[in-house]
Amino acid sequence: MAALSSIDLLKDCDRFPHAQDNNELYLSKVNSYYHLRVASDPATLGFVLPFVAEIFATQPGWECDSKSTPKTLTLVAGSDVLSRSAAVAESLASIRSAKKFEVLTGWRDESKDVFGPDGEVIFTIERSATPLLGVVHYGVYLTAYTRTADNQLKLWIARRSKSKSTYPGLLEVIISGGISAGEKPLETAIREAGEEASLPEDFLRTHAKATGMISYIEVREESAGGETGLIQPEAHFVYDCELPEDMVPQLNDDEVDSFRLWTVDEVRKGLQRGEFKPGLAHVILHFLVRHGIVNENNDPDYVELIQRLHRHLEFPLRRGRTASKV
Amino acid sequence: MAALSSIDLLKDCDRFPHAQDNNELYLSKVNSYYHLRVASDPATLGFVLPFVAEIFATQPGWECDSKSTPKTLTLVAGSDVLSRSAAVAESLASIRSAKKFEVLTGWRDESKDVFGPDGEVIFTIERSATPLLGVVHYGVYLTAYTRTADNQLKLWIARRSKSKSTYPGLLEVIISGGISAGEKPLETAIREAGEEASLPEDFLRTHAKATGMISYIEVREESAGGETGLIQPEAHFVYDCELPEDMVPQLNDDEVDSFRLWTVDEVRKGLQRGEFKPGLAHVILHFLVRHGIVNENNDPDYVELIQRLHRHLEFPLRRGRTASKV
Repeated sequence: MAALSSIDLLKDCDRFPHAQDNNELYLSKVNSYYHLRVASDPATLGFVLPFVAEIFATQPGWECDSKSTPKTLTLVAGSDVLSRSAAVAESLASIRSAKKFEVLTGWRDESKDVFGPDGEVIFTIERSATPLLGVVHYGVYLTAYTRTADNQLKLWIARRSKSKSTYPGLLEVIISGGISAGEKPLETAIREAGEEASLPEDFLRTHAKATGMISYIEVREESAGGETGLIQPEAHFVYDCELPEDMVPQLNDDEVDSFRLWTVDEVRKGLQRGEFKPGLAHVILHFLVRHGIVNENNDPDYVELIQRLHRHLEFPLRRGRTASKV
Repeated sequence: MAALSSIDLLKDCDRFPHAQDNNELYLSKVNSYYHLRVASDPATLGFVLPFVAEIFATQPGWECDSKSTPKTLTLVAGSDVLSRSAAVAESLASIRSAKKFEVLTGWRDESKDVFGPDGEVIFTIERSATPLLGVVHYGVYLTAYTRTADNQLKLWIARRSKSKSTYPGLLEVIISGGISAGEKPLETAIREAGEEASLPEDFLRTHAKATGMISYIEVREESAGGETGLIQPEAHFVYDCELPEDMVPQLNDDEVDSFRLWTVDEVRKGLQRGEFKPGLAHVILHFLVRHGIVNENNDPDYVELIQRLHRHLEFPLRRGRTASKV
């Protein structure tokens, strides 16, 4: 297999059209979905496949309009976060027990926030159901790395167990996770670092460094498990954490086969072979760009690459709760 | 005056609509311009105001179509880089001597590359004319900073001379510049660091670190000089360079009043007061985000902010010339 370029990798993960490249194609794609809304608010919160919208429309509290442009699926039940969330939970329980969707077999009993136009939570939803409604999935990735005595940079990389149902045997950074409802991104990173790699909380609090975000739209394929074609807009907070050479993350999870320190060259070769899980090319390339390792002198697609690390999402975005200032 | 938020600052500099936020508004804006093309190629290379397109259309080698959607201004003269560039230069010489445009009074005798669909140069153009044709302006920003003995981070900031015709008295990072035709971004940074701050080339070659890019569309206002409303898509390669405490950049240019080391807090206050030149909020916020200083815990608009640092541009992008790989 020919080595994958950086742009190949990013396009592999995000095949959704860009409005700026071909507006007609973009609009026809966007209008092929039902736009998820809540009553009396015109903001689109997610993109829903027609066969999914039709099933939600059979549930009390939902209305489907297939005649409008765009077509809409509206949650009419509820008038605040609690009542909307309860209505969503009730519909999902019914849809799940009727075994309508395969993705719901991955039920997590874990809630995720969905954000409205003011950046506040508009309702919460069971995590495994987020791709059904095509709402933004917020997560964190923390890249743990070490600088060796001879100033070589090495990254801690995990290989997923071959028995995992999703993305078996693929590579990823050792710490990642979805942000639970009400959780702050840094807390997610610290929690996952403890759970997945036994990294001490105190160390993380002083050494984990927020370094930005990546965003993309994944159109789910078979390897993700469940229905294909579901839309999963992704926005991930990314952190770096430099570990001293003698701090070794402990494997804490039978879903992962091994942790190992990889040289930058090994990581790039792993990317070129397509061995990383979807989304991880974004994470690793973002890291390599920030550290000056991938640059305009060694990657001809540098300009496009950076644009593709940061897809401008169509949906209301998560806002923090402190006063807005620089 | 109320303190400007990070989003205020980015929107101040980039008021162009986003397709993902309101595609109708975006399309109507985009279609209000003439789309710059070259013969037998459908790619749009820039956005041109109607009164500008009409003047180019009076020149030999150009064709204007006001009936198509979008309206187009096409360079029909020339069939390769050299002949197209010569045709553009000839038209500009004629337009300049007829004193048609005020922006051309800032004539630089410096060529800039315009890139075609394959990422190769399609023609070159006098720098001061780029906003007339609305083509992407590529530049570099290098943020020089120092870590004090007590591990405090300070940034070298320049204040522009009050007698400058553009942006008098405003603040900026000490090294920036446009990439000349045929020049590589790192070479621009090194050249400007020598010219503007007498920083030694050897030091820059080993210590300047590529850290990504910022991109935005500036709609030129009066403070930019010349005609207002001209479109200036901007893509800047950004570099960090940590200077030892005893390396002091030397003011080398009477267009700048002073260089001074600013604490992060002083820089943020300067931003909040709107004292930085347009585009600099992008540069500084990109720096503060990468260094973990602006993060999701202290800026409620963190998610939107990062999306706005990286506008997906509508035009063919610059590509490097080495083989494409990760």
